[in-house]
Parts: sequence; C-alpha cells; structure tokens
Amino acid sequence: MSKGTLVLSIQGGADNWSPQRWIERFNAVGHGRKVVLLPEQISDPDDVHYAAVWKPQPGVLAAFRNLRAIFNLGAGVDALMADPTLPKVPIVRVAVDDLTGRMTEYVVLHVLIHHRQQLSLRDDQSRKLWQPGAQWAAGAVTVGIMGLGTLGRDAAEVLRRMGFRLVGWSNSAKTMDGVECFSGRDGLAPFLAKTHILVCLLPLTAETRHILNRRLFEKLARNSPLGGPVLINAGRGGLQVEADILSCIEDGTLLAATLDVFETEPLPTNSPLWSHPRVIVTPHNAADTDADAISAYVAEQIARFEAGEPLRNVVDVTRGY
Amino acid sequence: MSKGTLVLSIQGGADNWSPQRWIERFNAVGHGRKVVLLPEQISDPDDVHYAAVWKPQPGVLAAFRNLRAIFNLGAGVDALMADPTLPKVPIVRVAVDDLTGRMTEYVVLHVLIHHRQQLSLRDDQSRKLWQPGAQWAAGAVTVGIMGLGTLGRDAAEVLRRMGFRLVGWSNSAKTMDGVECFSGRDGLAPFLAKTHILVCLLPLTAETRHILNRRLFEKLARNSPLGGPVLINAGRGGLQVEADILSCIEDGTLLAATLDVFETEPLPTNSPLWSHPRVIVTPHNAADTDADAISAYVAEQIARFEAGEPLRNVVDVTRGY
Repeated sequence: MSKGTLVLSIQGGADNWSPQRWIERFNAVGHGRKVVLLPEQISDPDDVHYAAVWKPQPGVLAAFRNLRAIFNLGAGVDALMADPTLPKVPIVRVAVDDLTGRMTEYVVLHVLIHHRQQLSLRDDQSRKLWQPGAQWAAGAVTVGIMGLGTLGRDAAEVLRRMGFRLVGWSNSAKTMDGVECFSGRDGLAPFLAKTHILVCLLPLTAETRHILNRRLFEKLARNSPLGGPVLINAGRGGLQVEADILSCIEDGTLLAATLDVFETEPLPTNSPLWSHPRVIVTPHNAADTDADAISAYVAEQIARFEAGEPLRNVVDVTRGY
Repeated sequence: MSKGTLVLSIQGGADNWSPQRWIERFNAVGHGRKVVLLPEQISDPDDVHYAAVWKPQPGVLAAFRNLRAIFNLGAGVDALMADPTLPKVPIVRVAVDDLTGRMTEYVVLHVLIHHRQQLSLRDDQSRKLWQPGAQWAAGAVTVGIMGLGTLGRDAAEVLRRMGFRLVGWSNSAKTMDGVECFSGRDGLAPFLAKTHILVCLLPLTAETRHILNRRLFEKLARNSPLGGPVLINAGRGGLQVEADILSCIEDGTLLAATLDVFETEPLPTNSPLWSHPRVIVTPHNAADTDADAISAYVAEQIARFEAGEPLRNVVDVTRGY
C-alpha cells in the first residue's frame, strides 16, 4: 500500500533556501514516502496526502483532493491565509525549538544593541572618540513584547533573566510569570504607556495590519532612560507603516528602530530606511528555518497523525494564526 | 565615640565618574561616618578606618595606620596590587549583582553580534544589499570563557540558556553545570581547541599579563561556523598583545574581535584598532560601577565587619585577585 506522496511547494524564502536541500531532508526522514517538488508533474494527484509549503502559488494545492494536512515551513501563515482556494484541511504551524531560539537571539541582540547604546558607540568608534557615557542598568528599562506566543514568551524569559522589566500584549488574555500582561484593544494603551523598547512579534492578520503606526508610537512611554522609545519589528512587514516610522524618528517620537521585515521585500534600494543612521535593517533573517529541524518536526507530526493522534500546532483559520 | 573616617581616593575611572557623586552616596549610606575625598587634608589621620578607592595614587593610603579595610570600587584590583606601600589590611573586591548583570549584558551582546554576523549585515546595510546568508544555530557554536568567577559564571549561564555550547577555563579547578571546565596550564590548550568565541574575563596578574597573544590565538578551534575564531576581551588591557590581535586578524588566525580594554586607555587615536572593520572598540564601559549599588555594598560590609563578622570577597594577595 502506498504511503502517499508529500508535495513540496517553495516560493521566495531566503536566498539560501535551496529546494533541493528540502527534498533531501524530507527524503531522509520520510521512511520511503514519495517526495515531489512542485511544479514537477504529479503522476497520481489523488496519492498526495501531505503538503509542505512556503508561500505556495495560490491554487497550487487545489488539485489534491486527498490532501490530509498542510505544513507551513516558516513562522507566519499570512501568505497561506490569503489563498481562498486552499483545501480545507488542517494547516500546521512551525513550532520547533530551533526557530524559537533563533528569534530569541535576534530579539535579545537588538534589545541589547539599543540598551547598550551600540549605535552611538559605533559612531564614536568611527570618529576615534573615547567617551564612555552614562549607562543605565537593565532594571531601568521596560521591554514591551507584542505577541505572547511561543516566540514572544521565550524572548521575554531570557530578557527577564538579564534583569529587564517586561510587559506583554496579546490579542487574547495571557499570563506569564514576571511579565505584566495586557490584552485586547483596551489593553493596548496601558501596555504602550509602560514600554521603552517595543518588540513586535505579532502575526499578520486583518486586525494587526499597519498596527505599528504613528498613533501607536505616540502612546509609548516618554520617560525612557534611552532618550526615547525604540521599535524592534521581527514580525511581518505588513504590520508597520514605514513612512510613520521614519517621520517618528525624525521628530523624536521614536529614538531608533531595528527592522527585519518590510512592506516590500527585498527592501527597495530607494527606501530611506537603508541609510538612516538610527535604523538597523536586517534582511528578514531573524529566525531562519532550519531544514533539518523542520523536516524532522513534520515527519514526527505525520507519524503521530497516522497513528491516530491529533496534529499539534494547528492554525485557527478564524483567527488567522 | 567617633565612628571613624572613610576616605575616598578616586583617580581615572570613566569620564562620567563624578567624585562628588561618590561622596554623596557614601554620606547617604554612612550613618554619620565622616567621608573625606582625598587629597583633601585629613585633620586626624589616625581616625581613618576605611578607604574606598579606584586606582589611588601609590602611597596615598600609607599614612593611615588605623586603617581596617580597603574597598575597591571597580571589578579589577590590579592597580592596587601594584602599590608596594599599600597598608596590609584586607582588600575587598566588588561583588554586586548590578556589576555582574552589566558584564553579562556586554558579553551576551558581543557574542550575539559575532554569532549573528552583525558586522557583515551592517556592511550590507551601508551598501543597500539585501543578502540573507546562511545562519547557523547557537548549538553549533562553542563559547569559551576564560575566568569562571562571579562574572564568567553568570555570562555562561545566560549563554547556555540561549543554546550555545560552553567551555570554561580558570586558574584553579572549578565546576559548573553544563559547562566543560578546564584549568591550569595543562588545561589551556584543550580548552582553546574547543573554543569558537573566546571571552576573556580574567583578572590581570603576573601570570595572566599578555596571555592573549598569537601563540594562544593559534590554538583556538579552526572549525568555527563563523569562519574563524573571535576574541572578546572585557577583562583588562594588560591581558592582550594588541599587535598580535591585529596581525592575527590580518592573516586569518582570528576572524574578528570586540575589545573593551586596551594596553593604554583611552585608546590612542593612532591605534589601528579604531578603524579596523573587524574590530569593535568600546571605551572600557562593559560593566560600569553604579555608585548606588557599590556604596550600599560597602556600607553593608562595614556594618557586618563592625558587628564582628568577617568581611566577604576579600582579595587573596598571594594570587593577586
């Protein structure tokens, strides 16, 4: 009896994403299950049981009427949610320690860069200036994390261990030891009023699109030891209004920003974000997907599912994440 | 009865070290004990019971024959050890969570900068290049910490939590959960052979002077995912041979370095370290002493000592730290 076919559909992704690498990995963990990289011709579409995808072409999965589950190979499912022809089967999010750890690295790195005034120190170095300024303790800084899923919680835990004060905001009410949690529309303003460094790890949905705008930045705490509020967005580019980020840095509403994601990616060369001295641009590499870790995760989920157990980390399509 | 006088002798230190600040702090916590900032005239030298110092002029404490203890206001006691006229009384090291936390911030920040290729990404940004390269997981990188005192152990703990592999080296044998520990002369080569990112937090003594030299760098692991070994020195400038660091980066023995301390401080403007693209220079501000935290620590030690209990964190002058 056939084990069924797993189709891979991978568009975009980082330059270093080799589809061939994914085929090799899925073959290595598939216990003989056939793996086909779309758009290669499928001899028997009805034999396709699983799809592992990253930003697949809309419609590409519609022909597989025996599809049982779709595995997303990155952290956000917003590209999938935008495809109305997607088969109505469970969509499984990535939840692997490897990806979580990478995002925590990114968040901690950029919180520390701003907290420890590394942009000023770098400028001092370029001018050969030895000027140790006053440096506040971590306990004087409140990091506010938007999005308290797996990623946000892990980053919060490490930042707390390092002595920062933490507040968190999420759509639905959550709790976390040592983190003052706010939720929903009403919770947003009081959350922002306490936040010196804002870290955005929200999923992109109809509700969150363009949430990082001037109105929100104006509600951030003004009493920051850093001299002004800082934005770190490692969620999705669609969450932010880039013109607002720039104008808010210019007029002092924001002090600085680290952006890993952009309204258009790659970030166009004519974007003023590239050369702004108080903006750190990274090329959407905050939390790279590791093919080894993700393929093992998908294989384990399939094995569990075929043994009659439920899939884990299934997307709630009504919420969109 | 007089509570005795506490003299303050503060030379050098960061530009933002205001002796006046220290006087205010020591007055605030001294419960009426007289505080005098040297070289102000002392009316009764025999009434001086305590000294709190940072790099005092050699000989400045010799006149106080009733001195009971010397409190060092920063992390390293090498400047004190170099004064042969120092009264033979206990010298107390700083051991406050505030300073430890600041050093951990610095170590974690610079480990992450190198691990996450921030020097290359910064260069890409300046050229408006969107090129997400391959990024290895923290578990593929071994951080080697020289010096497993309070500072080294705390930094190791946070780095471990973030997924890095840890090895440690110290003069005398130590153990730490999850950290492979080496010690003494014989342990140095096997420690270095495992280390991708070398973090130096050693005290400066006759044995450790110039320990960070070409011979040592050549023993570091060559199989680093970063492309080569990285040096982070936040100990003392006297630990390093700057000409070796530069030539080792030039010939590939080292990939890059972060230096907070230098053979001469402030780092002279003619030092090539300032403008090297793979050297991060910071102005000896890795772990600033916070006057509030340190003065409270000294006051607490004095109170305990006058209640008949032993001083804590006393320097072993035979070891020099």
